[in-house]
Amino acid sequence: MNDKIRIGIAGYGNLGRGVEAAIAKNSDMELVGVFTRRDPQTVSAAAGTAVFPWSALADHRDTIDVLVLCGGSKSDLPVQSPELAASFNIVDSYDTHARIPEHFAAVDAAAAEAGTTALISAGWDPGLFSLNRVFGEAVLPDGETYTFWGRGLSQGHSDAIRRLDGVAGGVQYTLPVEAAIEQVRSGIRPALSTREKHTRECFVVLEDGADAEAVREAIVTMPDYFADYDTTVHFISAEELARDHAAMPHGGFVIRSGNTSAEHSQVVEYRLALDSNPEFTSSVLVAYARAVHRLAAAGQHGAKTVFDVPPGLLSPRSPEELRAELL
Amino acid sequence: MNDKIRIGIAGYGNLGRGVEAAIAKNSDMELVGVFTRRDPQTVSAAAGTAVFPWSALADHRDTIDVLVLCGGSKSDLPVQSPELAASFNIVDSYDTHARIPEHFAAVDAAAAEAGTTALISAGWDPGLFSLNRVFGEAVLPDGETYTFWGRGLSQGHSDAIRRLDGVAGGVQYTLPVEAAIEQVRSGIRPALSTREKHTRECFVVLEDGADAEAVREAIVTMPDYFADYDTTVHFISAEELARDHAAMPHGGFVIRSGNTSAEHSQVVEYRLALDSNPEFTSSVLVAYARAVHRLAAAGQHGAKTVFDVPPGLLSPRSPEELRAELL
Repeated sequence: MNDKIRIGIAGYGNLGRGVEAAIAKNSDMELVGVFTRRDPQTVSAAAGTAVFPWSALADHRDTIDVLVLCGGSKSDLPVQSPELAASFNIVDSYDTHARIPEHFAAVDAAAAEAGTTALISAGWDPGLFSLNRVFGEAVLPDGETYTFWGRGLSQGHSDAIRRLDGVAGGVQYTLPVEAAIEQVRSGIRPALSTREKHTRECFVVLEDGADAEAVREAIVTMPDYFADYDTTVHFISAEELARDHAAMPHGGFVIRSGNTSAEHSQVVEYRLALDSNPEFTSSVLVAYARAVHRLAAAGQHGAKTVFDVPPGLLSPRSPEELRAELL
Repeated sequence: MNDKIRIGIAGYGNLGRGVEAAIAKNSDMELVGVFTRRDPQTVSAAAGTAVFPWSALADHRDTIDVLVLCGGSKSDLPVQSPELAASFNIVDSYDTHARIPEHFAAVDAAAAEAGTTALISAGWDPGLFSLNRVFGEAVLPDGETYTFWGRGLSQGHSDAIRRLDGVAGGVQYTLPVEAAIEQVRSGIRPALSTREKHTRECFVVLEDGADAEAVREAIVTMPDYFADYDTTVHFISAEELARDHAAMPHGGFVIRSGNTSAEHSQVVEYRLALDSNPEFTSSVLVAYARAVHRLAAAGQHGAKTVFDVPPGLLSPRSPEELRAELL
């Protein structure tokens, strides 16, 4: 008897490929296939992965235990998550922090009516970082929480650079300021401005004949994106960009610094150092797919977040084994 | 109407005093009182704290929502936790890792029969460190978990030193080896021996006329405790011991290093730097007392561990607020 958890992947970009790789690392799961809005003939997936057109999702209601949604937060997930939660248990990585309440409400309505379980906003931020903010605040109520991101490639800021006149290509890295991290770690709870927490570093390929100084000025003064930060701009060749900046590293820190008495301060630090942001995010989605499968089996329907999931449900191990081996 | 969570403290040593301090930091809780096996007249608690004899617990079944057990794991909790779970919702910090399954079974039997909720083995190890072991393994199944402790005062090792002939007093600190931590952080997944992970540092006060070299030799060759470690022994005066070594700092690291693909390694690090080990442990117990109160109200009875508790239940905030503010 095959009792593996049957996973479907809806959307096949960096995140979808990461989910495909993560399922191969989890022996209690199997991949039913990838569902794409492109022509399946044009999609080259890993050996053994079935590729279906998006329309085939309707035929797979009974053969998929959990569907992992790998679309973007801007235009895909706000539509897809409520729509697919009406037919499937789902996990998504919706990461527009300010709009999470409305996304939750839309998905919850669909999932509650359909009797499915839908976990939204999994990943690392939102996701594991959010959990550490909750644990930190609950354990050290008299304290401050600090989040630092990086060193990491920022997709949004890289896009902003590439839209500028004279720019042929480029990437942007967000870097946490080490001195600020050290201050926070010391337990003193500093007030830190935006500029004191992060710097930004850009690697830019100019178009032929473009004015480097004008491009640099346009970047460092760009409101919202760069004006509030100390920003460094390096000009490189297209070859260097392709060779040295194709990876998508990221990570960061959540630090809670608090006092349990007048005499004693305590510091809790959670840190991620990721070679590949999309592969790590995908691995989190897959672990939460296991939990969703179990919550659904237990009749716990509707929308959920990482705050609602008992951590033991993420593990393939039994509760007895977890208590004996990992507690 | 008073709808605060009413907490009782059973046992009033370092941990009990820490719980007393932690309740003062949580405005949704109130302290019913401290229950002690000593003569209450001899116990000096904080201003406003009621001190009761142990026998008065029987009269407080209806006025305590959650009883936090602050006894020791060696002889107190194996008896008290099952006994008190028959009358109260409880939280304990049982930390004898190897015997957790039998402790769980005993407490579960009592709590299930009585219809109470009993969370065992809360704190940081077991506790928050255990959670990070589960998260790390679930998200990065192809990986290794490393736990480092320290710099911290070890009660068991300090006791072992103080039992030696010629020793008037002393403390022992466990230190993680920085070079080993750096290796693990780099993502290479080293195999590390006991000696490569931690060193031990002892501060010893000699009795009059004791032979320092003989004491040093007795310490560094002591089986189980010191023989497998690089151990440094410093001889100090009784005044220095009292002045410089009265605090109980501790902490450590749980690091999960894993691969999401052949190309990409990912490192997750959780770190505690604690001025006061008992005060931090107490703060964790109090946050879990809130969760126990809610689980009990939801009819989820029996023994639980940190693996069974949805993280949102630790927070005084509502689910809506958590999603809007911390996700």
